[in-house]
Amino acid sequence: VPSLMAEQARRKVERTVRELWFFLSSQLTQLRSNEAMSQNINKLKTDLEGYRRTMLDDLENLRRVDDAEEWREQKSKEMGYLVQRRFENIQNPMDCSSAKKIVCNLHKGCGFGCQLHHVAYCLITAYALKRTLILESRGWRYAPKGWETVFEPLSRTCTDKGSAVKTHWGSSYRDTEKHKVIEMPIVDSLHPRPEFMPLAVPEDLGSQLEIFHGNPAVWWIGQVVHYLMRLRPEIETDVQDAGKRMGFRNIIVGIHIRRTDKINLEAAFHSLEEYMTHVEDFYNQLERKKPGITRRVYLASDDSAVLEEAKNKYENYVFISDNSISKSAGLGTRYSDGSLRGVIIDIHYLSRCDFLVCTFSSQVCRVAYELMQTLHGDASQKFRSLDDIFYYGGQNGHDLRVLEAHPGSSSGLIQIKPGDSVSIAGNHWDGFSKGTNHRTGMSGLFPSYKAEDTVVKVLMPTYPEVPLKSSR
Amino acid sequence: VPSLMAEQARRKVERTVRELWFFLSSQLTQLRSNEAMSQNINKLKTDLEGYRRTMLDDLENLRRVDDAEEWREQKSKEMGYLVQRRFENIQNPMDCSSAKKIVCNLHKGCGFGCQLHHVAYCLITAYALKRTLILESRGWRYAPKGWETVFEPLSRTCTDKGSAVKTHWGSSYRDTEKHKVIEMPIVDSLHPRPEFMPLAVPEDLGSQLEIFHGNPAVWWIGQVVHYLMRLRPEIETDVQDAGKRMGFRNIIVGIHIRRTDKINLEAAFHSLEEYMTHVEDFYNQLERKKPGITRRVYLASDDSAVLEEAKNKYENYVFISDNSISKSAGLGTRYSDGSLRGVIIDIHYLSRCDFLVCTFSSQVCRVAYELMQTLHGDASQKFRSLDDIFYYGGQNGHDLRVLEAHPGSSSGLIQIKPGDSVSIAGNHWDGFSKGTNHRTGMSGLFPSYKAEDTVVKVLMPTYPEVPLKSSR
Ligand SMILES: Nc1nc2c(ncn2[C@@H]2O[C@H](COP(=O)(O)OP(=O)(O)O)[C@@H](O)[C@H]2O)c(=O)[nH]1
Ligand SMILES: Nc1nc2c(ncn2[C@@H]2O[C@H](COP(=O)(O)OP(=O)(O)O)[C@@H](O)[C@H]2O)c(=O)[nH]1
Repeated sequence: VPSLMAEQARRKVERTVRELWFFLSSQLTQLRSNEAMSQNINKLKTDLEGYRRTMLDDLENLRRVDDAEEWREQKSKEMGYLVQRRFENIQNPMDCSSAKKIVCNLHKGCGFGCQLHHVAYCLITAYALKRTLILESRGWRYAPKGWETVFEPLSRTCTDKGSAVKTHWGSSYRDTEKHKVIEMPIVDSLHPRPEFMPLAVPEDLGSQLEIFHGNPAVWWIGQVVHYLMRLRPEIETDVQDAGKRMGFRNIIVGIHIRRTDKINLEAAFHSLEEYMTHVEDFYNQLERKKPGITRRVYLASDDSAVLEEAKNKYENYVFISDNSISKSAGLGTRYSDGSLRGVIIDIHYLSRCDFLVCTFSSQVCRVAYELMQTLHGDASQKFRSLDDIFYYGGQNGHDLRVLEAHPGSSSGLIQIKPGDSVSIAGNHWDGFSKGTNHRTGMSGLFPSYKAEDTVVKVLMPTYPEVPLKSSR
Repeated sequence: VPSLMAEQARRKVERTVRELWFFLSSQLTQLRSNEAMSQNINKLKTDLEGYRRTMLDDLENLRRVDDAEEWREQKSKEMGYLVQRRFENIQNPMDCSSAKKIVCNLHKGCGFGCQLHHVAYCLITAYALKRTLILESRGWRYAPKGWETVFEPLSRTCTDKGSAVKTHWGSSYRDTEKHKVIEMPIVDSLHPRPEFMPLAVPEDLGSQLEIFHGNPAVWWIGQVVHYLMRLRPEIETDVQDAGKRMGFRNIIVGIHIRRTDKINLEAAFHSLEEYMTHVEDFYNQLERKKPGITRRVYLASDDSAVLEEAKNKYENYVFISDNSISKSAGLGTRYSDGSLRGVIIDIHYLSRCDFLVCTFSSQVCRVAYELMQTLHGDASQKFRSLDDIFYYGGQNGHDLRVLEAHPGSSSGLIQIKPGDSVSIAGNHWDGFSKGTNHRTGMSGLFPSYKAEDTVVKVLMPTYPEVPLKSSR
C-alpha cells in the first residue's frame, strides 16, 4: 500500500516531465521560426537547467520516500556482513593442511589498483571453488616485506600453501577439483575463462542485490576489495590521523586526476576544468536544499601541480588534499612504502566521498568506487567518469539488453531491436553509447536509453555453514 | 519494503532522465555552433519524441508497479460507495416533515451541464449542512415534466419541501441553522460564499483522497454528479442500446467539440486537427505496447458537420458517434427531450473513454471528466483540454503553492518565491501558467512546474451513522 508521500513523490515526477514536454515542444517550435537562434538556445539551455534540477530533486525524493534509502542501507549492510563472514569462512578452514587452495602472487607488473584487482580475482576464484586463497607477497614492489606490512593477513590460520604440487589453472580445467593447490595466472593469461569472473555475481545473492542496488557487480567486487583491504590497526590509525590533519569531512566530492604515465598511453588528458564542471553541478544541485553549503573537494592525483592550480582557479572551494601524497605518487617514487601509504589514504578517502569525479580508465578510482558501495545503500550512481564506464580488468563480456528499437544510419548508428544483446564498449555521455550488436555483428553508436544493463547471476557455493545473521 | 519491480521501475526513470540530459546538453551545444539550424531542430524534435515516449512509459510502469493501480481502484470504489450512501442518508431522512431542507430549482437559464452543476452545488450544500435537498424541476427547459423524466428522484421518501417558510441564503447566513427550509440562489448570486464550495473537499475524506487521487476536488464533484445522474431504468437501457448501436468499446479516446453558440462568446474556435493531434499522441504512445491497435474515437459535438470532416480526414480512425445527437444539440432543437437524451448519452460515453480531449471551457466535457473519476483509480490525468484548466463554475479561489523561486521579467513573467500562494487563471500548455501572486499582487506568467496544486480540506459532517462498509 503506497503512502501519501510515495504517491505525491511519484506524481511530482510525472508533473515535471509533463511540463518539461510542454515547454520543450513550445520552445523548439518557436526556435524553428526564429532568426537569432544562438541567443535563444542559450536562453533555452538555462531554462532547461531549471527543469533538470527539479527532476533530479524529484527523483531523489522518490528514491528516499518512506525511508527507502534507510532500508537499502540496512540490506546492503546485512548482505555485506554475510559476504565478509563467508570470506572468513573459506580463508580460515578447520584444517589448513588438508584444505584445497588457490595460490596467487603479487608479481603482476602494474600499479596498486591493478594488483589489488588481481588479488580480488583470486579471492573470487577461491570463493567460487570453495578453496582457501594463499597470497605470496614477498618482494612486492610497493612493500618488499609483503602484504601484511599494511593489511591484515588474508587468513589467521592458513597462510602456507603446504608442500603439495601446484597445478596451473588451465592445464587442468576439467579436473580442477582433483588438485589440491591451483596457481592462478594474471588475468590476461587466464584460459579457459571461468564464468564466475566479474561482472558475474553469486546467484544466491543476486536476486536480493538487484532489488536494492543499481549495479550488483560493483557491489560484489566492493565486498571482495573490502575484505582484502582490511587495514592493520597501526595503519588504520595513521589513515584516520591523516584524514584529521587534512580536515576531511562530509559533504565532500572526490576527484581523482590521473596523469603522469597514464596520459596518451592508456587515457587522454583531462583538464581540471573538466572535473570541476561536474563538481559544480553536484553542488549547484545540493545548494537548492542546503543553501550556503561549504564546497569541499577531496583531491587525489599523481600530478602534484594540480592542487595549486585548483586552489588558484576555484577560490570558492575548499580543497582537502595532502600534496606530499601526490608527490610520492609521481613516477620516481611510486613503488615505495610511502607511496603505498599514500594510495591507501587516497583510495580510503575517495571511497568515503559523497560523489566521485574521475576517469574510470584508472584502477585507483575504480577501487574507490567499488569500496564506496560497501558504505551506502545504493551508491551506484554517485560518480561521473570522464572516460570509460565501469569495468573490471579481465572481465567477461559486458552485454546490454536492448529495450527499444532504433534504426541504423549512415552517420554511425547501428540498428538495434528489442531483445538484442549488445556488447558495450563505452558511453559517450552525450546520449549515445558504443557497442557491438551480437545479432548483426555491427559496431557503432546507439541511444543509451534504449538498452539496459543485465545482472549476470552465476551459481557459486552458497555457504550454508555460515549463518545468515551472526550472533556478533 | 520496495519490491524488485518497484526499484527497477524507479531506476528506469532515473536512467531515462539522466540520458535525456546527456543528450539535450550535447545537442544544444552542437546547435549553437551550427548553421543549418532549422533542419537540426526538426531532427532534435524527433529524437526528443523518443525520449518522451520512453519517459511516459516509464512513469506509467512506475504508477502501476506492484498492482498499485488496482489498489487505487479499490480505494476509489470503496470511498465512492461510502459517499453515495451518505447522500442517500441525507436525502432519505427518517422523518421528512421534520427534516431541515435545502431547496433548489432548475430555472437557471443555461445548458444541461451548467444546470447539473447548479444542482451539484445545492447537493454539496445539503451535504455540508446535513440537510435534505429538494429539487423543484417542473417546467425544466429540457423536459417540462421535470427531472424524474430521465433521472431517479433525489429521494425515495422526501421530495416535498413542506409548508414551512423558505428563507433565502444570505439574508440569514449567521443563523442559517435556525431555519427549516433554505432556498439557494444560482451560484453567481451566492453571498456570503461558504467555504465548503468547490474546490474544497470534505476534511474526513481528504487525507485518503490525496493519497490515491491526483485531483481530489474533481473526484468529489464526480461523486456528487454521479448521485444526481442515476438514470431511470428505461433510460439506462436506452443509453446501453445506443452504445451498442454505435459500437462503443474501449480502448477509445473521447473528443468533445463544442461549437455553435459557444464560439467567440465564451471560447475560441478550435479546429478538428487541434483535437486530433492529442488523439494521435495518445495512440502513438499506446501503439508501442499494443501494435496495430484500432484507433477508436468517440466523437461528441453540437456541430453536426464535424463527423463527416473527421471521417474524411482521418481514415485510419474509427469514429463512434451518433450524428442525430449532434443535430439535436444544435441551437434550434437544443431544449427538448430528444436533445436531453442526446447530451446524457454523450456525457455517459465521454466519461467511459480512456482519455478525453476537449475544451474545459465547456461544462459538458467537465461533467464527463468528473464522472470519469468515479470509474477509475486515478483518472485525473486522462485528459487534455485545449483551453482552460479544470474549474467549477462559482468555485472559491483556486490557489497554487509555489515550490521554487523564479525571477520576474519584462516579458511578462511574475516573480515567485517558495511558499507564495498564486491564484491560477490558466495553463498555457507551453510550460507556463498565468496567475496572480497574492504576496505581490502582480499578475502574469510563471513556469508551471515551479508551483503545485493544494488540496483544500474543509470540515463537513462526518456521517458517523453511515457505516464505513455496508453489508450490501
Ligand atoms: N596516492 C596516489 N597514488 C596514485 C594516484 N594516481 C596514481 N597513483 C599511483 O599510480 C598507481 C597507478 O596504478 P594503478 O593503481 O594500477 O591505476 P591506473 O594505472 O591508474 O589504472 C597507483 O597504484 C598509485 O601508486 C593518486 O591519485 N594518489
Ligand atoms: N448531445 C450533445 N449536446 C451538446 C454537445 N455540446 C453542447 N451540447 C448542448 O449544448 C449545451 C451546452 O450547455 P452546457 O451543458 O452548459 O455546456 P457549455 O455551454 O458548453 O459550457 C449542452 O447541455 C447540450 O444541450 C455535445 O457534444 N453533445
